[in-house]
Amino acid sequence: MATFGLIEYNDASTEVRAIYDDIMATRKTDWINNFWKAIAHDPVLLKRTWESIKQIMAPGALDPLTKEMLYIAVSVTNNCNYCIASHTASAFGKGMTHAMFKELQAVIGMANETNKLVTGYQVEVDQRFQAPLPR
Amino acid sequence: MATFGLIEYNDASTEVRAIYDDIMATRKTDWINNFWKAIAHDPVLLKRTWESIKQIMAPGALDPLTKEMLYIAVSVTNNCNYCIASHTASAFGKGMTHAMFKELQAVIGMANETNKLVTGYQVEVDQRFQAPLPR
Amino acid sequence: MATFGLIEYNDASTEVRAIYDDIMATRKTDWINNFWKAIAHDPVLLKRTWESIKQIMAPGALDPLTKEMLYIAVSVTNNCNYCIASHTASAFGKGMTHAMFKELQAVIGMANETNKLVTGYQVEVDQRFQAPLPR
Amino acid sequence: MATFGLIEYNDASTEVRAIYDDIMATRKTDWINNFWKAIAHDPVLLKRTWESIKQIMAPGALDPLTKEMLYIAVSVTNNCNYCIASHTASAFGKGMTHAMFKELQAVIGMANETNKLVTGYQVEVDQRFQAPLPR
Amino acid sequence: MATFGLIEYNDASTEVRAIYDDIMATRKTDWINNFWKAIAHDPVLLKRTWESIKQIMAPGALDPLTKEMLYIAVSVTNNCNYCIASHTASAFGKGMTHAMFKELQAVIGMANETNKLVTGYQVEVDQRFQAPLPR
Amino acid sequence: MATFGLIEYNDASTEVRAIYDDIMATRKTDWINNFWKAIAHDPVLLKRTWESIKQIMAPGALDPLTKEMLYIAVSVTNNCNYCIASHTASAFGKGMTHAMFKELQAVIGMANETNKLVTGYQVEVDQRFQAPLPR
Repeated sequence: MATFGLIEYNDASTEVRAIYDDIMATRKTDWINNFWKAIAHDPVLLKRTWESIKQIMAPGALDPLTKEMLYIAVSVTNNCNYCIASHTASAFGKGMTHAMFKELQAVIGMANETNKLVTGYQVEVDQRFQAPLPR
Repeated sequence: MATFGLIEYNDASTEVRAIYDDIMATRKTDWINNFWKAIAHDPVLLKRTWESIKQIMAPGALDPLTKEMLYIAVSVTNNCNYCIASHTASAFGKGMTHAMFKELQAVIGMANETNKLVTGYQVEVDQRFQAPLPR
Repeated sequence: MATFGLIEYNDASTEVRAIYDDIMATRKTDWINNFWKAIAHDPVLLKRTWESIKQIMAPGALDPLTKEMLYIAVSVTNNCNYCIASHTASAFGKGMTHAMFKELQAVIGMANETNKLVTGYQVEVDQRFQAPLPR
Repeated sequence: MATFGLIEYNDASTEVRAIYDDIMATRKTDWINNFWKAIAHDPVLLKRTWESIKQIMAPGALDPLTKEMLYIAVSVTNNCNYCIASHTASAFGKGMTHAMFKELQAVIGMANETNKLVTGYQVEVDQRFQAPLPR
Repeated sequence: MATFGLIEYNDASTEVRAIYDDIMATRKTDWINNFWKAIAHDPVLLKRTWESIKQIMAPGALDPLTKEMLYIAVSVTNNCNYCIASHTASAFGKGMTHAMFKELQAVIGMANETNKLVTGYQVEVDQRFQAPLPR
Repeated sequence: MATFGLIEYNDASTEVRAIYDDIMATRKTDWINNFWKAIAHDPVLLKRTWESIKQIMAPGALDPLTKEMLYIAVSVTNNCNYCIASHTASAFGKGMTHAMFKELQAVIGMANETNKLVTGYQVEVDQRFQAPLPR
């Protein structure tokens, strides 16, 4: 694939290095994956994306592993190979077991199937599902 | 929308009723949502889909609520309104809190954004992500 | 939904009317569905799209009903409700039976599921499938 | 891509081998493609998927070649390269001619275009298409 | 559809009101569309999304109308009706003419078609397109 | 990937050569990219697609560079790697600057995110957006 090339740590501006440092510190790792090195061509995007990811993927009402699996579900549905590879590795790093991986893929597969059965049969939304959600 | 109409319990064959009964028993509820009543026009599909869903969505290495949230992540990414409405209702029924709902949506949104940044910047998969997954 | 409104036959230019006439003559029908009345705001698009559709959907190596079912398969996968409604009606008009409809939906559902299992398991293409296609 | 590796026949459990044997017998072939070897890590998924595929893709109201072409239509729309490669090979194996291949691709391309024209012009569904489907 | 309801200005917290005020001031308008009132249930998301949108959609190397049209291209491809309705209205508000609208839709339609022809014919990327992009 | 192979100029029929010549003359270049060489197996498709592209991508109410960026927005959203590679190269050839590229990607990413937030929160279309579009 054609890219602008990747911005390695040693070639990065002070601004970009600070974000790389924060990524590594937050993730307790000593390397930066290609995604960040690619979007570092746009330091504003790099900063905004990292800060959003950092906040969104942090422990909260959902634990980090659940969030990684949700990320995988979206990425598989979008057919984004890079994203699947990186988040699957990340999920295993956060404790996903093989049993969990298998159930994750089974749910994703089944959801994609029933999404299309609903659509193809032109099923109307039940009245009960149109009620306001609980607040 | 145009459909064949929905097959209500009272109009259903013995075969279809047995599945409706199992759906209600398994879900501890007294009603059947439109999806099942629509695909009941194909009893073989109804049976296969229900048996698959029943097995896949049961408690396992992942708990049922996590599975519902994964279902929502796929359904939102696929833009399937019926599926979003039904699985969101189901997730609240299984204990999803508002805090969880918000984090779920934030992850889905962010994953869809970074999926496209990866794609648009044509980012190549890191060597480390190409290593065999742990077995 | 917001649209520019639909261009009815009586309000149409001579150029647009000629296409409407050809649509009705080709389809042996006396009405025009909303799609054509909507894109008639761009007569160049209307003409190009109709001429392409007319040629592509005509009997050839594949019969018209098979082509309608392929159209439905794409439309369901894309979640295009209008397209599903119109092409499903059209397929029934061209002789699709209920048995065919059910098998069609089952194939679409299953294909969407296995597409995602392939993707989620990151399956590499077999050498045999990389061989040149027969000419 | 990173995978768990493929489960070859000689390394497979008795349970998995029985499915491999059935795949080969049903398809009158002496090899197993990577998809099955990948999902064999989850024997329950392997079994369910094969049994569903076997039933759905069998001759019925639609012939097997038509079903393969529908599979291709979904796979192209989903952009699933593995699926396109395998089902295109399979369709040629079942008698798809070049003329059929070309018409198939033309329909898929056109359907994807008009799906988006409908969407972009925000076309409302015609009353006639909202009538109940014939039963 | 089921929602949590919309958070109207008068019912909003000070924090949310401040964002509503900024949206109206930035857009030189006196109302807030439903999207913001819906995600206001998550004030952190509301703030992050608005600040990102405000920055990204501001005049820069691309003018605001071009950005709106790009937004429409994505929204049509994703089949997001709300997004199409709101951004189409917005684009007209920013000076999109009918001629521009028509060309926009024609490009979106054609791009979706050729995307699928490329995919269905399994076209390999040309060497020239794999060269590094200009920096 | 498996293809029928590419039809090179020297092997092409007179009919196909004429289109290749027109592509090169229109684009003021001396080579043909793989897309055209692949679909040349179907000369009718080649002709129709080229004539449509030639007309649609020509200067009009929108300039050619804007059209290329719209093409990229669709292709990224569809995850079509070939299309992204070719149209990104083409856009740089037509004068896209790095600043424009970055804003383009930022808009695409953000649009994909908000498309899914709208969908996940099940936001209803505002009355104002349902008004007829200006004519």
